[in-house]
Amino acid sequence: MPVMQTFPCNGRYYTPPDRPLAVLCLDGCSDEYLNAALAHQRMPHVAEMILRGHRSVVRGALPSFTNVNNTCIITGVPPAITGISGNFFLDPETGEAVMMNSAAYLRCPTILAAAAAAGRRVAIVTAKDKLCSILSHELSGTGSICFSAEKADQAKQDTHGIDDVESLVGLPTPPIYSADASVYVLRAGVALIESGRADFLYLSTTDFIQHKHAPEEEEALAFMAAIDEQVGRLLNLGAVVGATADHGMNAKNDASGRPNILYLQECLDAQFGPGHRVICPVTDPYVRHHGGLGSMVSVHVAPNTSAEKIAAWIAEQTGITEVHDRIHAAHHLELPPDRIGDLVVLAGRDLVIGIRHEDHDLSQLNGSLRSHGGRYEEMVPMLLSERLQGTHAQMASQDPRNFDIFDFTCHAGGNRP
Amino acid sequence: MPVMQTFPCNGRYYTPPDRPLAVLCLDGCSDEYLNAALAHQRMPHVAEMILRGHRSVVRGALPSFTNVNNTCIITGVPPAITGISGNFFLDPETGEAVMMNSAAYLRCPTILAAAAAAGRRVAIVTAKDKLCSILSHELSGTGSICFSAEKADQAKQDTHGIDDVESLVGLPTPPIYSADASVYVLRAGVALIESGRADFLYLSTTDFIQHKHAPEEEEALAFMAAIDEQVGRLLNLGAVVGATADHGMNAKNDASGRPNILYLQECLDAQFGPGHRVICPVTDPYVRHHGGLGSMVSVHVAPNTSAEKIAAWIAEQTGITEVHDRIHAAHHLELPPDRIGDLVVLAGRDLVIGIRHEDHDLSQLNGSLRSHGGRYEEMVPMLLSERLQGTHAQMASQDPRNFDIFDFTCHAGGNRP
Repeated sequence: MPVMQTFPCNGRYYTPPDRPLAVLCLDGCSDEYLNAALAHQRMPHVAEMILRGHRSVVRGALPSFTNVNNTCIITGVPPAITGISGNFFLDPETGEAVMMNSAAYLRCPTILAAAAAAGRRVAIVTAKDKLCSILSHELSGTGSICFSAEKADQAKQDTHGIDDVESLVGLPTPPIYSADASVYVLRAGVALIESGRADFLYLSTTDFIQHKHAPEEEEALAFMAAIDEQVGRLLNLGAVVGATADHGMNAKNDASGRPNILYLQECLDAQFGPGHRVICPVTDPYVRHHGGLGSMVSVHVAPNTSAEKIAAWIAEQTGITEVHDRIHAAHHLELPPDRIGDLVVLAGRDLVIGIRHEDHDLSQLNGSLRSHGGRYEEMVPMLLSERLQGTHAQMASQDPRNFDIFDFTCHAGGNRP
Repeated sequence: MPVMQTFPCNGRYYTPPDRPLAVLCLDGCSDEYLNAALAHQRMPHVAEMILRGHRSVVRGALPSFTNVNNTCIITGVPPAITGISGNFFLDPETGEAVMMNSAAYLRCPTILAAAAAAGRRVAIVTAKDKLCSILSHELSGTGSICFSAEKADQAKQDTHGIDDVESLVGLPTPPIYSADASVYVLRAGVALIESGRADFLYLSTTDFIQHKHAPEEEEALAFMAAIDEQVGRLLNLGAVVGATADHGMNAKNDASGRPNILYLQECLDAQFGPGHRVICPVTDPYVRHHGGLGSMVSVHVAPNTSAEKIAAWIAEQTGITEVHDRIHAAHHLELPPDRIGDLVVLAGRDLVIGIRHEDHDLSQLNGSLRSHGGRYEEMVPMLLSERLQGTHAQMASQDPRNFDIFDFTCHAGGNRP
């Protein structure tokens, strides 16, 4: 049985309960996926958990991308402090687009490392291996566990804190482009608690299904049912469970059902000539999800050019909802000013912003597109297995964030920091 | 039995089915109210309707206020075309704040009048009497019915198309500050269909309960249950039912649970001196709901002043999320440029914007505040009793609007325009 102990992290105090605790990040799980699955009675355990505990809608971090929000969730602070503003940023010194999937870019400690330092048995399981570097920041030497479903068979005691994951879970490593990759994450969480190997868990799934299927489709319902089964097992083990999402998900198609894309680099080249540079920070190695297309991009304007003029022009394009200059984006979107463009551009519910036609491979998309990254994927569900009380109930009725989830989960049910 | 006939209105064609049709505007019904009531099994008819039909989230018009969105819903077009941008606007000729609760300010025809002209038996029932003027635009002489629950006992054949509403409904006129005022609207709708007096209905409730109670509170659950009962009766009568909301609803309190208000007029006076004017377009005669406080205001800057400078300053204030100049607001928020300020200002999820302390009576609020008006009350539920097919299913997967509800309801179930 874990001992109740208080630890600080990034300006807050956390007192996890003397029971196993599992925080789930359900990648791309907009509220509609819960609505549909609950309506079809495919989530009986979650239905019961909500009645006993809490369900609401919370605000994620922008851009509404996976690594941005996972990083916020495990630190309890916005991207302005984590430093992780997307999968890519343009290094001002080299002019190169640099991938930020590494803890080297993380600018603050994590709740997970703080919990481990306070004596909790920490385990992190993620679907995509790319997240492991950031999630396991400062965990080496603490006896903590961190591995991905994608590379479950490659986890080693020395490097991941665990050997032979497949035996523990009782299933072979799943393909990353599958619903199973996510369910495997939760199964592993159950097995880790069951075997007494962990009592403070972060379980982060992948949004492969949500990119492919709308909430009412059978594939989505079956996926939510499989998640529900594992949530039920976590609850049966006596775990306190908190769940949120990194971002929502919307169809991004035109009236003919084809991807609705504004190729902003082409527009800027045509309108203002060469020299401006559009960065799509959603781009990652897992292109089959979204073709590198999301609803937020950074724009670096050419030297000696008025960013204001470019901003005003972009703001008038159909489907563009917000254009912020660097300082305003840093302040109001809570972004690190050195890891965004001169301009930050957001698109509406049904539009994604690309670079040029040749920069995005749409052949993997099966004709239509579901994606995220903008304001309309900012609001996400929050579920807790215990009821909120006192200051945390008050906090939940203000402007609660998805990156408050560890705070809420630790202190739900009246457990006090 | 009504005859299927196609009629045009504001650029679309509507072919309502040969059954009674009822469109419900559930005032202030954010998706969370449905989630909570469904979780507690307090909406069995809606639960069944969703399974057979459709549930999703659609985008309302900004500002997310009642008369703005009711007007959009009955016309199928945004405020830029309806001309109704709030309860108040500043008349540039007189410098006076003018109330827009009159059809004199409406700039386009309504679907309701078009349906009546096409031979449908139209009835409109609204909770608040203030909406009647706009909702009944061009209906006189068509035999249509329009009355409010608030003044049910005052409805007369000559002016409202109906006498003795209390006998028809079987209940006395309810108090306007009550849950009953809304339930009465739906009861009246049921009675109108039952008695064969109407087959094309618009039923618009009031958000008294949502302003007072969060989704999980018993008062809210009981209210949703009462609505559900009437929806069940509409469905039993064979009606096609579509429902949406005019706006969502959020708590607007600080950490102590007190109303979280930015008194913008005071700030502008202090920072820039007198001459600028803040207009709160949520202000209406029904002050007990929200004290005239919402999350969107217009600002008219003093003559010979740089609106840009004022805008930049406002944009930096904590909790302010968007500041648009007149032209940009007209274009991107779809507002009529002559009925907004030089600046349009939106606040975040937990903040409202006021004028001065003395302009808002908080004594009616019972200590805390729930309100709307901004971007975080823009997304609202849509429910349909039939499944969407073909082009309408495609439309629902793009950027569907709450003011598409008549289009969706008329053509759900494969009924074609």
